Amino acid sequence: MGNFPEYQDITTVACIGAGTIGGGWAAYFLSRGLSVRVWDPSPDAGQKLRRLIDAAWPALTELGLSDGASPDDFTVHTDLAEALRGAGFIQESAPEVLELKQDLLARLAGATGPDVVIGSSTSGYAMSDMATTAVDASRLVVGHPFNPPYLIPLVEVVGGEATEPDATAWAAGWYEYIGKSVISMDREIPGFIANRLQEALWREALHMVDNGEATVEQIDLAITEGPGLRWPVQGPMLTFHLAGGEGGMAHMLDHFGPSLKSPWTRLTAPELTPELRQRVIDGCDDEADGRLFSELIAERDAGIIAIRRALAPSMSPVAVPGT
Amino acid sequence: MGNFPEYQDITTVACIGAGTIGGGWAAYFLSRGLSVRVWDPSPDAGQKLRRLIDAAWPALTELGLSDGASPDDFTVHTDLAEALRGAGFIQESAPEVLELKQDLLARLAGATGPDVVIGSSTSGYAMSDMATTAVDASRLVVGHPFNPPYLIPLVEVVGGEATEPDATAWAAGWYEYIGKSVISMDREIPGFIANRLQEALWREALHMVDNGEATVEQIDLAITEGPGLRWPVQGPMLTFHLAGGEGGMAHMLDHFGPSLKSPWTRLTAPELTPELRQRVIDGCDDEADGRLFSELIAERDAGIIAIRRALAPSMSPVAVPGT
Repeated sequence: MGNFPEYQDITTVACIGAGTIGGGWAAYFLSRGLSVRVWDPSPDAGQKLRRLIDAAWPALTELGLSDGASPDDFTVHTDLAEALRGAGFIQESAPEVLELKQDLLARLAGATGPDVVIGSSTSGYAMSDMATTAVDASRLVVGHPFNPPYLIPLVEVVGGEATEPDATAWAAGWYEYIGKSVISMDREIPGFIANRLQEALWREALHMVDNGEATVEQIDLAITEGPGLRWPVQGPMLTFHLAGGEGGMAHMLDHFGPSLKSPWTRLTAPELTPELRQRVIDGCDDEADGRLFSELIAERDAGIIAIRRALAPSMSPVAVPGT
Repeated sequence: MGNFPEYQDITTVACIGAGTIGGGWAAYFLSRGLSVRVWDPSPDAGQKLRRLIDAAWPALTELGLSDGASPDDFTVHTDLAEALRGAGFIQESAPEVLELKQDLLARLAGATGPDVVIGSSTSGYAMSDMATTAVDASRLVVGHPFNPPYLIPLVEVVGGEATEPDATAWAAGWYEYIGKSVISMDREIPGFIANRLQEALWREALHMVDNGEATVEQIDLAITEGPGLRWPVQGPMLTFHLAGGEGGMAHMLDHFGPSLKSPWTRLTAPELTPELRQRVIDGCDDEADGRLFSELIAERDAGIIAIRRALAPSMSPVAVPGT
């Protein structure tokens, strides 16, 4: 693809920034048997990274290491050029400050050859806004992970206006190659997809805390004991598809459509036009991909049970006297 | 507590409405060894309920049945008085239409003795708005479950203006007694807590579909492979507490606070005042309840791994060649 390397030829990657996200990336790359070169200007970066990798390694081992993976196969540098030496891919995870990202990405693009793709962990900036000062922005791609990057598979991939489509496609393939779940977006939107969803929930939570409507603990319990148990199994759309009963999403929208006008959140809903209604219904059908309604329910139930059992292996029947 | 029965003395409950939610409640009550009397006016209610219970029973068996629990210990009635006979508790799960709920709750209150508490499965109406026509609204309480009610533990409990506090407390205790996770709310807010959070996410998803920014499938994948994997383990607040690194929620708010102004969702955030900032930080501390940061991370990681393993038991290392 273009002039970019074959994935299997990459043995060394560079992690720029070794905070929670950058360090998590480093741990993940190590678990894939890659050598990792880390750049971080702070004097205690090496120590913090050591602790982070040590804490993550049991989890990574549990999930399965690649051949030759070692928790020690990393070096930490304060000199950028040194950190980039021999790296076949670069993951930038600097603090979320636009000017800082712009400057750093420009330096990274300038310091690497035309075959090195640079992925940014930004949680919300569009690459078009971050790549403004780079002389060559063609290899700059957003590769947005979730915390902790060594356990959550999702990476959202999207290029900026100046990004070469081949570089974006290469990055998506690369993340998939190392075992990530990739969403390739056609369009830059602030916060991408998952953070927009998460941020809507978070803002509503902040409003509730602000108004004294719920405590922090109640908000967390409402998710962990409620809809949160469904979400690793089926996303919000398929969840509502099943909530509609045998009528599916169509019934759901017709029955609960009016509640989009209710003040159930501070977020105003879009108008539920016939077009939007149909697009959501069709989307659920596409996603169900021929699975019967009863099959989707069985999958959901099996998933929730597996999760509840996994999180509470000793879960036992409640002692309600029988009739 | 007041004049209400001891929980262990209740052997029979009534389910009003046998749709997805009402039928799910019936299945759950049966699994707890209770006799269930179902009222539903539709002619095929009995058949649909039979199918729903049969589909749910393997899951309920897997989670553990109470002594004497039988999937056949139910009767279906079209006569309301008959359905209520001998019921020590009533769960109302009629369609989400205000006038219908008002009418039905008034009839239920009128047809039962002063010792019978009536829980409503409403997904968003305040009891104060639903109880307007009831002669005796003192025993009418919201007991809001999540779909499927036989697998998701959460029940949100809140009374209306005319509800006797003892009845609300009794209902909360009852749901806990039968094995549910209860959030008791002091205050009525539309959509309660979990649905407000879920609805914010859902509306943002609808906006994205409406604008062609994401497909239904991408939205679901963004959750199931992303933040959704964290939410059964730690809710949104504790998640962000850990995302802040060792600085916790305080660092998170100071670092990402400015992004509350970003257009990452259509939901406008509250002003991050010093008071709100402190309330969120204190809430996280309360919830952490003395657990060290490293312990919280270890719990999160163990939970996510358990979930990933539970959902993909055959998950194996990705074949990345070692160095």
